Amino acid sequence: MRVFNFSAGPAALPETVLLEAATEMLDWHGSGMGVMEMSHRGPEFIAIHAEAVALLRELLAVPENYRILFMQGGGLGENAIVPLNLLGRNPKADFVVTGSWSKKSFKEAQRYGSINLAADAAVDGKYRSIPPVAGWKLDRDAAYVHICTNETIDGVEYFFTPDTGGVPLVADASSHILSRPMDVSKYGLIFGGAQKNIGPAGLTIVIIREDLLGQAHALCPSAFEYRTVAEHDSMYNTPPTYGIYIAGLVFKWLKAQGGLSGMEARNIEKASLLYQAIDATGFYSNSVAPDCRSRMNVPFYLHDERLNAAFLKGAQERGMVQLKGHRSVGGMRASIYNAMPVEGVQALVAWMREFEKTHG
Amino acid sequence: MRVFNFSAGPAALPETVLLEAATEMLDWHGSGMGVMEMSHRGPEFIAIHAEAVALLRELLAVPENYRILFMQGGGLGENAIVPLNLLGRNPKADFVVTGSWSKKSFKEAQRYGSINLAADAAVDGKYRSIPPVAGWKLDRDAAYVHICTNETIDGVEYFFTPDTGGVPLVADASSHILSRPMDVSKYGLIFGGAQKNIGPAGLTIVIIREDLLGQAHALCPSAFEYRTVAEHDSMYNTPPTYGIYIAGLVFKWLKAQGGLSGMEARNIEKASLLYQAIDATGFYSNSVAPDCRSRMNVPFYLHDERLNAAFLKGAQERGMVQLKGHRSVGGMRASIYNAMPVEGVQALVAWMREFEKTHG
Repeated sequence: MRVFNFSAGPAALPETVLLEAATEMLDWHGSGMGVMEMSHRGPEFIAIHAEAVALLRELLAVPENYRILFMQGGGLGENAIVPLNLLGRNPKADFVVTGSWSKKSFKEAQRYGSINLAADAAVDGKYRSIPPVAGWKLDRDAAYVHICTNETIDGVEYFFTPDTGGVPLVADASSHILSRPMDVSKYGLIFGGAQKNIGPAGLTIVIIREDLLGQAHALCPSAFEYRTVAEHDSMYNTPPTYGIYIAGLVFKWLKAQGGLSGMEARNIEKASLLYQAIDATGFYSNSVAPDCRSRMNVPFYLHDERLNAAFLKGAQERGMVQLKGHRSVGGMRASIYNAMPVEGVQALVAWMREFEKTHG
Repeated sequence: MRVFNFSAGPAALPETVLLEAATEMLDWHGSGMGVMEMSHRGPEFIAIHAEAVALLRELLAVPENYRILFMQGGGLGENAIVPLNLLGRNPKADFVVTGSWSKKSFKEAQRYGSINLAADAAVDGKYRSIPPVAGWKLDRDAAYVHICTNETIDGVEYFFTPDTGGVPLVADASSHILSRPMDVSKYGLIFGGAQKNIGPAGLTIVIIREDLLGQAHALCPSAFEYRTVAEHDSMYNTPPTYGIYIAGLVFKWLKAQGGLSGMEARNIEKASLLYQAIDATGFYSNSVAPDCRSRMNVPFYLHDERLNAAFLKGAQERGMVQLKGHRSVGGMRASIYNAMPVEGVQALVAWMREFEKTHG
């Protein structure tokens, strides 16, 4: 029996994707090899890679002047890799902190340039809103502006694209990429670890506007230099081949679900169900401003924290796992990425009501 | 039908490992989740990770004062990550170049310190031997000495451990790690991409002596700083969880094969078979010095290069793939890692004899 897995990442994958991967494990399309065993220079894997790139380009409508790179190191790796790649000519960057992840990115970037905190949403150490863009202290001479478009821990999501007056916008979109359409042309660079909405941990997606290639710091490792990676079609070093294959299967599944518009409709339905249940009475709460409540990561608290263990135990008994909130913020967190079926959210909401009845 | 896959990496994996992975794809040990979907902080994956570390420590007899790290970026990544980690206090390092890989490592390291070419084995641009250690121009004040213990492209392998007079020895062992026992205590650091003898591409193994932690360059990315990675038990950033799981299955398989001694005996048998076939007549040739011919990567040439295409075509028709030599050296290359059964080498040798009869 499969559980409903609310993990923030690595996270649930579509069953059909896992079934196909299992079926092809020893022999991909009659090649006599599993994908994990294929040379990245062989015709089989080159086809798998090209199809994954093409599908991602189609799904996100990535313009022709953007390159899609498959890299390694995850979001935390990119916290250094982005400034190492973009601050080689101009050391200045602006950061907007709206949660734990952008705060980490801001801290790491300070090692590589003159980093300006353009805005910080923290109130009493908590992140619950996105400061109005009009108040951001942006430097028009900065090399880029960094934002995290969905804060996995705090549950704060951008539903607009800030206007940075021509300065390239860099988005850490790890935990909501592919959950809905996104106007890529408004960004200079979008990155994300795959392990939330795309595939296995260890694969990192980078989408970069071509004019931003070639601005690397002298000490940027070659294997992580975007221009080098782009020139070698993500094959400068051996790419995480199996992760790319799984991502390709997920991209196909996304297309079959109606693409990102279809996915957005399902994600709105799931998130609405859950937030309504949270807001229904005072038993549960989520204090993120309504206009930026994440559709992917929904943190919530029981009015009485002493009930947390009983809530989690009952959820587990009902086949719902990984609902414990991040240790830095406590409470609960339901991550409801693309692969979480609406039935999973319905089951959670039913359990929340049942639990409230017996403990309210 | 499975082929005999002679790819230099990513490379063949044991069938039993792939079968187990396929069986557990949707549900690992009754958890209701596949391994790819598991939170790296959850009890299931923590157990998988701990078991993989313990098995690797047992197989290689890694002493207690060494840490085993599971990282990302592969061998090419480590070419920068090693100097970024070891040259922070003392910028000097010695490099011994015995093939294409150590040459690449030497080149990349020059960006991070004062790098001395202690020895270079190239003769007419070709690598066929390991220069006598007595002639190496070692600097006794260097932070470390770098060697590549098995050159994947050139087929040159160390069967001894050079004495570096107390200066830490760093070994790029990507393409022969776990092919035989290794006295880890003689090294300061051993690294390897997993995609040859261990598991899927995207996982990098680092074994480091504890006193070498904490010497990182100020600009070393946090996600790639050995001390940070060690302090977080390879969980500072999300590790390549599925790769670690597959590696663990391979480690179990290795134990069942009699561990590294058992594996060494099989590898000697396979390599002997192949080199004997190459040396039998003048039809095939390998010019690497007999005392350093690699047991893992066997490059060889047909006496008439115009026959290459026919040789490869016939091999493919007989279920043997990826025998074409690296583009930089041409000819043929048979990579016969742990997972290549002796039957694969027997089939190759039979084809070599048959081909020689009809084209000799």
